Amino acid sequence: MKETKVSSIGERALISRLSEIFNAPDGEERRQEEVLIGAGSDDCAVLDLKGEDYLVVTTDMLHMTTDFPEGMTPWQMGWMSAAVNLSDIAAMGAEPTGLLMAIGMPSDTEIAFVEELAKGIQACAAFCGTSVIGGDLDTHAELTITGTALGRVKKSQLLLRKGAKPGDLVCVTGYAGSAGAALKAVQSKKPVSENVLKALFEPVPRTREAKQLAESGAVTSMMDTSDGLAMSLYDLSRQSKTGFKIRENALPILPEVRKFASGPEELLEFALYTGGDFELIFTIDPERLKKVQNICNLTIIGECTEYETGIMLESPECRLTAIKQLGYQQLKAETAD
Amino acid sequence: MKETKVSSIGERALISRLSEIFNAPDGEERRQEEVLIGAGSDDCAVLDLKGEDYLVVTTDMLHMTTDFPEGMTPWQMGWMSAAVNLSDIAAMGAEPTGLLMAIGMPSDTEIAFVEELAKGIQACAAFCGTSVIGGDLDTHAELTITGTALGRVKKSQLLLRKGAKPGDLVCVTGYAGSAGAALKAVQSKKPVSENVLKALFEPVPRTREAKQLAESGAVTSMMDTSDGLAMSLYDLSRQSKTGFKIRENALPILPEVRKFASGPEELLEFALYTGGDFELIFTIDPERLKKVQNICNLTIIGECTEYETGIMLESPECRLTAIKQLGYQQLKAETAD
Repeated sequence: MKETKVSSIGERALISRLSEIFNAPDGEERRQEEVLIGAGSDDCAVLDLKGEDYLVVTTDMLHMTTDFPEGMTPWQMGWMSAAVNLSDIAAMGAEPTGLLMAIGMPSDTEIAFVEELAKGIQACAAFCGTSVIGGDLDTHAELTITGTALGRVKKSQLLLRKGAKPGDLVCVTGYAGSAGAALKAVQSKKPVSENVLKALFEPVPRTREAKQLAESGAVTSMMDTSDGLAMSLYDLSRQSKTGFKIRENALPILPEVRKFASGPEELLEFALYTGGDFELIFTIDPERLKKVQNICNLTIIGECTEYETGIMLESPECRLTAIKQLGYQQLKAETAD
Repeated sequence: MKETKVSSIGERALISRLSEIFNAPDGEERRQEEVLIGAGSDDCAVLDLKGEDYLVVTTDMLHMTTDFPEGMTPWQMGWMSAAVNLSDIAAMGAEPTGLLMAIGMPSDTEIAFVEELAKGIQACAAFCGTSVIGGDLDTHAELTITGTALGRVKKSQLLLRKGAKPGDLVCVTGYAGSAGAALKAVQSKKPVSENVLKALFEPVPRTREAKQLAESGAVTSMMDTSDGLAMSLYDLSRQSKTGFKIRENALPILPEVRKFASGPEELLEFALYTGGDFELIFTIDPERLKKVQNICNLTIIGECTEYETGIMLESPECRLTAIKQLGYQQLKAETAD
């Protein structure tokens, strides 16, 4: 029975198996013509429709039990469903041009609940300068929301996971670990500040920041941190063929999160190995640092190194340890027996 | 408790409530700039990205229990999930440029099942000249597949539900009622031909036909018949402000379906009031009939009339009765008490 069930191989292995099927010869021709970036390697697929811009597109499916933590309001569920997709658009340096929302819900759902959900979706879309242009409604045992976001980016400004070079600086927007701490607080029913909870319940897509970063010409690679900082570093490393040295001291962490963590180990767990922050992680050419410094609240957390040196964390005492490839994965591979 | 649950108002009423929320002032500005057609009025949303073509986009959520009839293979579930979206692209006269598939499945799903599903998706995408360019995987109690399809169409060739004029001829591709008869056969465990079953299990998006119809310049309005012929006529009527006179004798029905139906009443039920056929229904300027006649297997089933005359069926004896606004709706409004 080993390795015959989805649960035995994990999300990334399954994606790779399916990608092989989707990349079969028949599809390849069309792919070469219009599809610049296909499934899997970046936050969005990228299409070249022979205009001035690239079109980027992404889809994300969320479920009541696995994606909406206890205590979330329907408005926040709507906001979150839009935000996860709009964050992927931002990750490419693109501006959103439209959102489609397919919603499956139990037939005994209160209309007021659905309306609040829609208001949350609309609020997040409007915050990012776009709107809902399509969707689907469906009855379903468990609330399920699949969003699809479209975006546009000038061809010269597209930002990919590929492009970082040794010597580049590694930056993040906002704070790391807030969503992870909030999730822990919710699950263990411990109190935590509103500020921290909001990071989990109402993640803010970095649409404005992304556009300015793309325009700066200083960014060499970018993605969002929705799967956690460690996973994001591994994704950037795989695509850019660089290593990373991240300074533990430099990680931007909210004071409330430092206070909430049971110790330095849990703090690192929050900051590196839990997802949900939806910040941008990006690398910049150090000679162009000035061009991005005033764009947004960004923190330089380390630098790109040679691929062979791996992904390392430098402690305050300058000791280097490897950052593990751990973080948020929807389909976790269970321990094989 | 009346009218507070989703089940009490039905899909179309709920869509209209949500559309109001999504069309709130904030979104309106952006909408006017890029969104030619928003949610609700056509098979796809239409974006004007300042290129040569319009971009069309659609999304559809399918669930194991409600959308995949008993007896379907995983390959067919995959094919169907791609087909419902690609049919919407065809309905606009557009060519598909990419497909995104978000799949939620139980963690004990066999990998072989998922691979078959992916092969079905890929086969349908390749048949329509496109490929899977993105997606999402997720664990979920019930198999849930949300597809999103993108397409392109020359600006002058976009086909909408709006545009039919009194005197235009009403045409359909393929056959009507095959999927309805097949569903009845499956549900009542009665035997029916492979040919009829295939209409339900492997619906064929009319991609090639749609492109040629769009290029002909003869088509004045178009949509797909996925919600049934009657609902499609009502949708065309609402957007085009025309009535219809449909000739019962002209409805293209497979001989096996005629034989399977218990009588003329059930035959009309299949042909008019059940969904799942995924054919194209379109109206043409009678003076340009020659331009479309050789494109595909099409049947003229009636003509457009003045809006005020309503949507009528003409019996072989030339008696006129109103076609009811009944058909496939995911969220059915239950009888209010």
